[in-house]
Amino acid sequence: MTGTRPHIVIVGAGFGGLAATKALAGAAVDVTLIDQRNHHLFQPLLYQVATAALSPADIAGPIRAIVANMPNVRVLLDEVTGVDKADKQVALGSGRTIAYDWLIIATGARHSYFGRDEWARHAPGLKTIDDATAVRRKILLALERAETETDPDRRKALLTFVIIGGGPTGVEMAGAIAELAHQSVSRDFRSITPHCSRVILVDAGPRLLTAFPETLSASARRAIEHLGVEVRLNAPVTNVAHDHVEIAGVAVPTHTAIWAAGVRASPAAEWLGIGADGAGRAVIGPDLTVAGCENIFVIGDAAACKGPDGRPLPGIAPVAKQQGKHAAQMIVAAIAGRTAKPFQYRHFGNLATIGRSRAVIDFGRVHVTGFLAWVLWSAAHVFFLVGFRNRFAVGLSLLWNYLTFARHARIITGEIPAAIPTETPREVRAEIRITPSLQPAR
Amino acid sequence: MTGTRPHIVIVGAGFGGLAATKALAGAAVDVTLIDQRNHHLFQPLLYQVATAALSPADIAGPIRAIVANMPNVRVLLDEVTGVDKADKQVALGSGRTIAYDWLIIATGARHSYFGRDEWARHAPGLKTIDDATAVRRKILLALERAETETDPDRRKALLTFVIIGGGPTGVEMAGAIAELAHQSVSRDFRSITPHCSRVILVDAGPRLLTAFPETLSASARRAIEHLGVEVRLNAPVTNVAHDHVEIAGVAVPTHTAIWAAGVRASPAAEWLGIGADGAGRAVIGPDLTVAGCENIFVIGDAAACKGPDGRPLPGIAPVAKQQGKHAAQMIVAAIAGRTAKPFQYRHFGNLATIGRSRAVIDFGRVHVTGFLAWVLWSAAHVFFLVGFRNRFAVGLSLLWNYLTFARHARIITGEIPAAIPTETPREVRAEIRITPSLQPAR
Repeated sequence: MTGTRPHIVIVGAGFGGLAATKALAGAAVDVTLIDQRNHHLFQPLLYQVATAALSPADIAGPIRAIVANMPNVRVLLDEVTGVDKADKQVALGSGRTIAYDWLIIATGARHSYFGRDEWARHAPGLKTIDDATAVRRKILLALERAETETDPDRRKALLTFVIIGGGPTGVEMAGAIAELAHQSVSRDFRSITPHCSRVILVDAGPRLLTAFPETLSASARRAIEHLGVEVRLNAPVTNVAHDHVEIAGVAVPTHTAIWAAGVRASPAAEWLGIGADGAGRAVIGPDLTVAGCENIFVIGDAAACKGPDGRPLPGIAPVAKQQGKHAAQMIVAAIAGRTAKPFQYRHFGNLATIGRSRAVIDFGRVHVTGFLAWVLWSAAHVFFLVGFRNRFAVGLSLLWNYLTFARHARIITGEIPAAIPTETPREVRAEIRITPSLQPAR
Repeated sequence: MTGTRPHIVIVGAGFGGLAATKALAGAAVDVTLIDQRNHHLFQPLLYQVATAALSPADIAGPIRAIVANMPNVRVLLDEVTGVDKADKQVALGSGRTIAYDWLIIATGARHSYFGRDEWARHAPGLKTIDDATAVRRKILLALERAETETDPDRRKALLTFVIIGGGPTGVEMAGAIAELAHQSVSRDFRSITPHCSRVILVDAGPRLLTAFPETLSASARRAIEHLGVEVRLNAPVTNVAHDHVEIAGVAVPTHTAIWAAGVRASPAAEWLGIGADGAGRAVIGPDLTVAGCENIFVIGDAAACKGPDGRPLPGIAPVAKQQGKHAAQMIVAAIAGRTAKPFQYRHFGNLATIGRSRAVIDFGRVHVTGFLAWVLWSAAHVFFLVGFRNRFAVGLSLLWNYLTFARHARIITGEIPAAIPTETPREVRAEIRITPSLQPAR
């Protein structure tokens, strides 16, 4: 690195930030990649960590390892707290500042509770590794507690899982939980049986997977109902508490609610003092730059970028990756004195998976469902995983899980909260012996 | 299960408790296995999780999955808080009680700070998955912070790792950290270089691995020094603070101290109202039962059991496993009206590994060192891992790490604490450019 080369600061090492970094590796520039975590996360498989099928490290790669062979890239573990457009500096959580010639903001989104932030405690979302291990702990502890619970109503509540939001994440979570709850209890538990568990997928809209054509929504619904998931549509969630979810005004007792209903962009628009859309996404121009600052790009889930149909592009990995690459190419072009062209999104298709052997794929004119779709989904996800080691391990784990129904990562980490209080101490041994009808047949 | 069969309660699903459970599977008894975690942990490889070579789920198996095919075994996720010998009941943290006909206590040990519990905050030990991920976070964060630290003294402190205790765990940790710090920084970091890191292994005694013969201690010392570890013997640690460790009265600045110096047994002796030795281990008879209570056994690290030489047996897995099996056999014999015989420990050997290709093994008359010992160590550890899936995955990970030097589990999970405060905000970009001499050669 020399002191005279343009310095490009990229904030966020998700799909967008990493695509930009890769496109700038080897160019005559210095790159600083800032992230508040030390790993890139393959978010599309996060639900597999939450349901104990994969380990965190299977879907997360250290950022430093990914860019190890890019000598002009420097990695910084820090949090961005603001941007000074006039002085061309980024302020960091550590108190430092870092100057840029070009800035790419790719900070993604968090889940949003539509102003009801108090729901977050009871219905965690799924964006980070820590989110996923928290959800895993919640699901596994509910099963553990149901095993020793003798009160039928409490047991029913412990074995009720409510997934809020019928998009791809909600559909994937519901399918995976149904499989976990129905299949692993049949061998591993003594008092609870598969038919005790209830998995409810709830959405305020009239169908699942609204980004897909109606026929695929219907197909996904049939597939997920086949797994034993109860689908509730046109059913807004009106409250979330520690022991129930209120669906269209009716309380459903549950100790495991999971949020997959909405996201809110990271505060890039606030940092830059520019406009944002209803989901908090920074409004940018068709070339992905901020109005009046052609050296600042916002990409991926943090940005509101309109597609050819005038609607904002969806918050999915291909959009972020293509935008990251485009921003990098524009910077290289500008440095070389060439002019920029607007960003054009190339859509390949939408995918969602349902359980261990079904999926739906929308390629535009071609729709694929069922097992073939699942095979394509598996291949695509394993292929796009960053790094050969992960790709290999995940491929192996997916295959192994498919063949054996195993969930090898079924470990509860972190503090185990106090058990759900019971009125009176109870004789567990007596309980074992008076409920033979609940034993699975052997 | 019927109401008339003897009920055996086993507390703790470590090596001892699990061996007892397996020996009782299929016998005409009901077994309840209680653990405060939902997984059995293969503790000997925990240092590999702490140094990012393996994922937690690689060395932990869900207890329910392990006993799934043992219909007479029931698993309970709960914490034992006391034992009522008169009423033959165990009190649980959830407020429940559970009655037993026979009781096997196999609750293991935690690390002990010799009465200086305030050191625990600064020098975590290594007994659980959460311990290991906490140590991993500490090590990886120290490297991250060293990368941006411009003050030479602070940087030196961030890159100093002190391992307290020269037993197998300390030697294994020191070797693994030396490899991690020296090898991964050489490719992944831009400002710090391998020779910046300092790994110190400190012990109050005159040699490493005191359970091994002196020649093997010397061999281990040479091997670990070859990896760049500084060995300090006859050097008692006199204080541990957040920014230094005092070794023989001299402060060594460090932000990463790791405790491998001492353990204290779980409070089985207190629960039972019986005598304990200096390490808190319950004093038991030669048949592993508690004096006056022939239906209560204490085994493994929780028990003080004398070997043929009159010295207490070491706190290692083979002792716990053999004792668990013995206790189970005694119970079956007693139910059948046969008489008990004393426990006899069969010693196979002591193993410790140093880095990625060396180990020392003491088979009694035969000593093995170097690469051959490492191959034997690897084979033994992979073989003894519970469950084929884990065995397969760990074998693969170890091989992969060996071939590539990779540390695939190098992810920081959990809260990232505030950065070490610096006096003044600093210009990172300037720093990048004024320290070319710290760049690794490419």
